[in-house]
Amino acid sequence: MKKPPPYHQIENRFRRLSAIGDAIAVLHWDWSAMMPPGGAEGRAGQLAELAAVRHALLTAPEVEELIAAARAEGDLDEWQNANLGEMDRQWSRAAALPEDLVAAMVKAQAACETAWRDAHPKGDFAAVLPSLERVLELVREAAAAQGARLGLDPYDALLDGYEPGARGAEIDTLFADLETFLPDFLGQVLERQKGEPDVIVPEGPFPAERQRALAVRLIEALGFDFDHGRLDESRHPFCGGIPDDVRITTRYDEDDFTKSLMAVLHETGHALYERGLPKAWRGQPVGQALGMSMHEGQSLLIEMQVCRSAQFMAFAAPVMGEVLGRSGPAWEAENLRRLYARVEPAFIRVDADEVTYPAHIMVRYRLEKALVAGELKLAELPAAWNEGIQRLLGLTPPSDREGCLQDLHWYDGAWGYFPTYTLGAMTAAQLFDAAKRADGAIVDGIGRGDFQPLFSWLGANVHSKGARLPAHELLSQATGRPLDAKVFKNHLRTRYLG
Amino acid sequence: MKKPPPYHQIENRFRRLSAIGDAIAVLHWDWSAMMPPGGAEGRAGQLAELAAVRHALLTAPEVEELIAAARAEGDLDEWQNANLGEMDRQWSRAAALPEDLVAAMVKAQAACETAWRDAHPKGDFAAVLPSLERVLELVREAAAAQGARLGLDPYDALLDGYEPGARGAEIDTLFADLETFLPDFLGQVLERQKGEPDVIVPEGPFPAERQRALAVRLIEALGFDFDHGRLDESRHPFCGGIPDDVRITTRYDEDDFTKSLMAVLHETGHALYERGLPKAWRGQPVGQALGMSMHEGQSLLIEMQVCRSAQFMAFAAPVMGEVLGRSGPAWEAENLRRLYARVEPAFIRVDADEVTYPAHIMVRYRLEKALVAGELKLAELPAAWNEGIQRLLGLTPPSDREGCLQDLHWYDGAWGYFPTYTLGAMTAAQLFDAAKRADGAIVDGIGRGDFQPLFSWLGANVHSKGARLPAHELLSQATGRPLDAKVFKNHLRTRYLG
Repeated sequence: MKKPPPYHQIENRFRRLSAIGDAIAVLHWDWSAMMPPGGAEGRAGQLAELAAVRHALLTAPEVEELIAAARAEGDLDEWQNANLGEMDRQWSRAAALPEDLVAAMVKAQAACETAWRDAHPKGDFAAVLPSLERVLELVREAAAAQGARLGLDPYDALLDGYEPGARGAEIDTLFADLETFLPDFLGQVLERQKGEPDVIVPEGPFPAERQRALAVRLIEALGFDFDHGRLDESRHPFCGGIPDDVRITTRYDEDDFTKSLMAVLHETGHALYERGLPKAWRGQPVGQALGMSMHEGQSLLIEMQVCRSAQFMAFAAPVMGEVLGRSGPAWEAENLRRLYARVEPAFIRVDADEVTYPAHIMVRYRLEKALVAGELKLAELPAAWNEGIQRLLGLTPPSDREGCLQDLHWYDGAWGYFPTYTLGAMTAAQLFDAAKRADGAIVDGIGRGDFQPLFSWLGANVHSKGARLPAHELLSQATGRPLDAKVFKNHLRTRYLG
Repeated sequence: MKKPPPYHQIENRFRRLSAIGDAIAVLHWDWSAMMPPGGAEGRAGQLAELAAVRHALLTAPEVEELIAAARAEGDLDEWQNANLGEMDRQWSRAAALPEDLVAAMVKAQAACETAWRDAHPKGDFAAVLPSLERVLELVREAAAAQGARLGLDPYDALLDGYEPGARGAEIDTLFADLETFLPDFLGQVLERQKGEPDVIVPEGPFPAERQRALAVRLIEALGFDFDHGRLDESRHPFCGGIPDDVRITTRYDEDDFTKSLMAVLHETGHALYERGLPKAWRGQPVGQALGMSMHEGQSLLIEMQVCRSAQFMAFAAPVMGEVLGRSGPAWEAENLRRLYARVEPAFIRVDADEVTYPAHIMVRYRLEKALVAGELKLAELPAAWNEGIQRLLGLTPPSDREGCLQDLHWYDGAWGYFPTYTLGAMTAAQLFDAAKRADGAIVDGIGRGDFQPLFSWLGANVHSKGARLPAHELLSQATGRPLDAKVFKNHLRTRYLG
């Protein structure tokens, strides 16, 4: 039998890799949303084995040869060329890491995560320091290896794993802009809030089952399709699964429906991005979502730009009252809008509001960059962390539990990830601004609970493009400008001081 | 680095195979219990890829070499030797099948299952006949190939896939015994039932949530541990997952709680077998359950021997009334016991009672044996089916929907599976009989809802043995006799004519 041409062979290899990656995604979802505690040990073994199989399939010698042969063969269209480029990137990143380093990282991260689970509630940074030292040592080794292969400095090599094409130097510029803006701006917002009448906080209890019904009503209005997805509960909200079976989770607090609801709306932004990826390219690298900033851009566009707007509240407030069976002044659209726009500096990133969130990110970004570069020692981390939070938010964490122990990321080996949250917030602001300018029906639609005009624009300009273009090019094409902080700052000024 | 000895290398290979198999089990459970319809296409791809990876890992040339080297190395204990034997069996079965045959079977079975889903509700056997011809052709090819490798005739090679060590000739003998017994016995039971007062059928509705609460109460009493398992809903009840995370499902009919409840108890028998498998041998072939007849033996022991007994009803009837919020004559233990012991010949196997069930199996067994041997043509199947059911149950199916189209097994490629249901019923009777003789506290315990004595005996004599012995040896050791129909017939006489 004649072998198919190299391009088709390499597509087939990546289709297999995608099937394994999708299986891993479902098993992760199950772990968080369904699995009883007794399943953890077996599941860890299943995931490690599938990761090993995937690594071996991706780094097999024929992959490099097939990519080169497909390139030499030529006669490919622009999607196919972009697909090859993304294959090459994935192969290069994986092949740069020796197998024993990969195994050592898995082991060190698992040990450090276990140590962190114990140390975090006690705020005992010293207890986790030795295992974190080991994680960072291996992360630096991996970053050096991948950087050498990709021609990037070590931090950029890590960043590139979450945000292909991004560079620390550009983030420095963007964050410097924000850093000059935010502290003063925050002061003005807090001053202004003081002068306003109190927000009325709706009083619980709100049964979980009613909260779920409310979430279902609103996400179905946004376009979430339960024939292609699920909504379940887990300790931390997330969006998992695969594009044709996308699974979001939340956690219900019966005293306060507002956080859980907004978490579901946020994850719905992620989910609808996945659902909108180009069907013709399922299972291929070019058919996948872009990096974390575009993904977070979609979730924050829905959560921050759309669902905290006056227009959305005009549509959603009556639905909230109806489904939760409540009425009165607390349930007026304007009260709920103000409730969802309260700003308050605090220690914990995941609970932070839109204005103070970037401060949490900028502190982490500078610290992880310095740690990876060897300019800061891990033993100095708690003090450096507290100094950063004090400078940007005017607060000092009472213990490392509210400080450098609060996020699992570093302990779990995720270095170079943090800045994408704030790049995502800027991306969201810039995309929504462009969408509104392109179609006046978008904002009106939101007020009526009609999100079709918005998703029509997002589908055409973002979702359906998959990974055909790098994120920065896609953003420029969609919005007419490169990523900067200007639109985000304008958005904050309008919402909080307008 | 020095390579570990061959036995350790081959254990490691099978540990990897087990991890992949476990991942497949979780993905199958998810498909049936959780997955939205839009996920089916992607899931089929994930499962096909994992099956291909598993097949390649199992049939790689070094597997045969390592098994041989480990045997030559010697110095293994009896568990390790049994482990090697089971590895060899799995390897031989897989290696006997050329890769293109495996791929053709997957394709033909998927096509036939699709055709069956359309033809079954219409009772249109002619519509599915061509794709069933293709499935049977490939099944016969596979049976010949595996038979040649294992020194078995083709039907025995298929049977061996579900019931290692079983042979058609022995089943012929067992079934001939049953076949002379059952028709007369059934007549006597029906005659006797006619003379008894009517059973009072509890009237619904029974909300699904209450039925679930009842099931949870009873399976927790049996020993089901929700830290190591789940109970969910699916179209057909089944037991899936892995030994430390065992997942059972059922379907609730709000008009009739009895079927769903008994289905859960049945699946709990499977689940507790998995849970009781030897912990030290997790992930190794010798640590797995024996074949289908021992597995069905565990579920039928719980469902038929224990949960339909007067002792169990004395314990469970008050719990049923309490959890479902009912009382009165319908809820007396003796009424519920009689309700659960009604016998009525009918067309559908999965709804059949304990007395008529073997008739359904014997018809299928004789037919599939003749079809595999080429002694019967598929075109003649509907008539042969109806003749068999008429002979054993005195009924003629009104259409093939109630006849040879009712079970998916053959259409899906499962040939050689059916007889294990009735081997399981005999195994269950024989094990329970031996258990009661060994420990008088077992029956008393059941009446009080204390199942510890029963599971203590089952654990020691069956569950903890894994696949250390072939099923027939394990049964002989546990009960003092080889498998025969005698104890099963005694059980039926006592329950239905006693």
